Amino acid sequence: MDMMGRGPARVAVDLMGGDHAPEAVIAGIRIAREAGHASVVAVGPADLRASIESETDAEFVVADQVVSMDEHPAAAVRSRPESTMAVGCRLVKEGAADAFFTCGNTGAALAAGLLYIGRIPGIKRPALATVVPATERVPVLLDIGANADCKPENLVQFAMMGREYARAALGTDQPTVGLLNIGEEPIKGSQLALAAHELMKDTVPGFFGNVEGRDIPQPPVDVIVTDGFTGNVAVKLIEGTAKALLGAVADAFRSTLASRLGAALAMSGLASLKDRLDPDEYGGAPLLGVDGVLLVGHGSSGPEAVASGIRMAARVSEQGLPSRIAATL
Amino acid sequence: MDMMGRGPARVAVDLMGGDHAPEAVIAGIRIAREAGHASVVAVGPADLRASIESETDAEFVVADQVVSMDEHPAAAVRSRPESTMAVGCRLVKEGAADAFFTCGNTGAALAAGLLYIGRIPGIKRPALATVVPATERVPVLLDIGANADCKPENLVQFAMMGREYARAALGTDQPTVGLLNIGEEPIKGSQLALAAHELMKDTVPGFFGNVEGRDIPQPPVDVIVTDGFTGNVAVKLIEGTAKALLGAVADAFRSTLASRLGAALAMSGLASLKDRLDPDEYGGAPLLGVDGVLLVGHGSSGPEAVASGIRMAARVSEQGLPSRIAATL
Repeated sequence: MDMMGRGPARVAVDLMGGDHAPEAVIAGIRIAREAGHASVVAVGPADLRASIESETDAEFVVADQVVSMDEHPAAAVRSRPESTMAVGCRLVKEGAADAFFTCGNTGAALAAGLLYIGRIPGIKRPALATVVPATERVPVLLDIGANADCKPENLVQFAMMGREYARAALGTDQPTVGLLNIGEEPIKGSQLALAAHELMKDTVPGFFGNVEGRDIPQPPVDVIVTDGFTGNVAVKLIEGTAKALLGAVADAFRSTLASRLGAALAMSGLASLKDRLDPDEYGGAPLLGVDGVLLVGHGSSGPEAVASGIRMAARVSEQGLPSRIAATL
Repeated sequence: MDMMGRGPARVAVDLMGGDHAPEAVIAGIRIAREAGHASVVAVGPADLRASIESETDAEFVVADQVVSMDEHPAAAVRSRPESTMAVGCRLVKEGAADAFFTCGNTGAALAAGLLYIGRIPGIKRPALATVVPATERVPVLLDIGANADCKPENLVQFAMMGREYARAALGTDQPTVGLLNIGEEPIKGSQLALAAHELMKDTVPGFFGNVEGRDIPQPPVDVIVTDGFTGNVAVKLIEGTAKALLGAVADAFRSTLASRLGAALAMSGLASLKDRLDPDEYGGAPLLGVDGVLLVGHGSSGPEAVASGIRMAARVSEQGLPSRIAATL
């Protein structure tokens, strides 16, 4: 469904997704509504109807089953057709919502998206993408886990979908694309990377060539393409490295009296850094290639992250993301 | 060759390897010799003999050809049998040295190691390993780039070799092993990871199960095993993330007068953090599975990093690393 020029989008929101659901989700809906980001359809068990209606101006749709964070995704989604995941995706499929946002089990969201929204015709493998928080140019990285094994032609489609996401989500004009590889030269890499490079150089607009692991945080391109195994390791490694490093910086500050004083003085600068590196700014991970907008937020999302996800889901819907992806085929 | 109990090792050192060769290498040899780390055989062009003999007490062996940092590795090594890489590896093969340390072209070092030292019988694919600088437990990670495509049985051998390196290099007693994967559960992962998990759980002592990208900087295991594509992306990503993040912290410090003052006060704590995270501490990347000790330092190594590499090469030789690996087969 193409929302271009149709005004603010309707975003279905999973009330039961994430570690702090439903409270953080309800608070996030309130923030998003106050900012006028989108109209919201809250999806959750009937006993939440009263709080939604008293605390927000969102519509309410009942979904009486829940898929929890640690279940086997595909099986849980299939066996629970009235789960918030399933109902949210069906609202998108039926056109009752333009997008679905959930902070729940990522695997279950992928399974529900494939089962209830379905692929854009011609897209072989939908891919999960993310915007990597970085200090300057923020790249779109995909696949980050939907496809542990990929073929070269899948990576070509990931490139095309990543470019459309960079346009719709970040407003990037002519997105450039790098292939994640283990050397800059075209002759470097795994069998997959070698074959993908050959295909991409002839078919992907703005193809830059190979980029390496060290380039991800300060990339020379707008979109970085890889298989879902490498991409998943990469995003979790960035998260882990940042956590370990900032923790170590904090420890170093605590180590002497002078450094404790120094840390207090440096706090304002560090707080602005924290804001710039906050992944919640970018609203979550879209499943690209399904025929609708499906965005998965971090399980630990608080109210601000939920609001940011709703805003992003609305924005890319209003930009007509699925039709734009279909048009690249 | 097993050096256990034979006293200090003889380490051949490539005078022409790295961005700051030969000056940084010669200075590093001097530091290593003053600390009594090992006896050194300096390998380089004849015109360096005089400086080696006047500035250090190292022996000197002539190698009149050089493989540069940006050449095609295998071709360069084959076409230049008198290169420092080739001569250094032959000294190990012939028993004239116990180990070879170079800061040169990593690909060329791998090619020379395979061609002139050769594999330990039974090892199918030698692997490049590294010690990941971390704030607490420092894990051995392999393969970081020798094999872009791997089979499950290769990963089993990597696990066994990584355990022996953790013992010899870090003194870890009963090293535990994790398989890098995209989920904790055994049913997660690529075809390669699934098959490797099955094999490893039955054959690798101390097998812990899957670890994820976020675990690498603060790992629950002593050895992390992956294919050379993922491992190469991972080590370069850690390097890139650390550089971007510490750069951003520095920028944040410069942003206000108070934070500049704070940074000055916090300097001592931050300097000790920098030391703890310094990858040079761990002496470089060993090529495990060749029938001798071959250690590759970072191209940007300065004198301290060279000295540290020489010390590590000597230590693992004295621990009889190649025989220990052979004994696991």
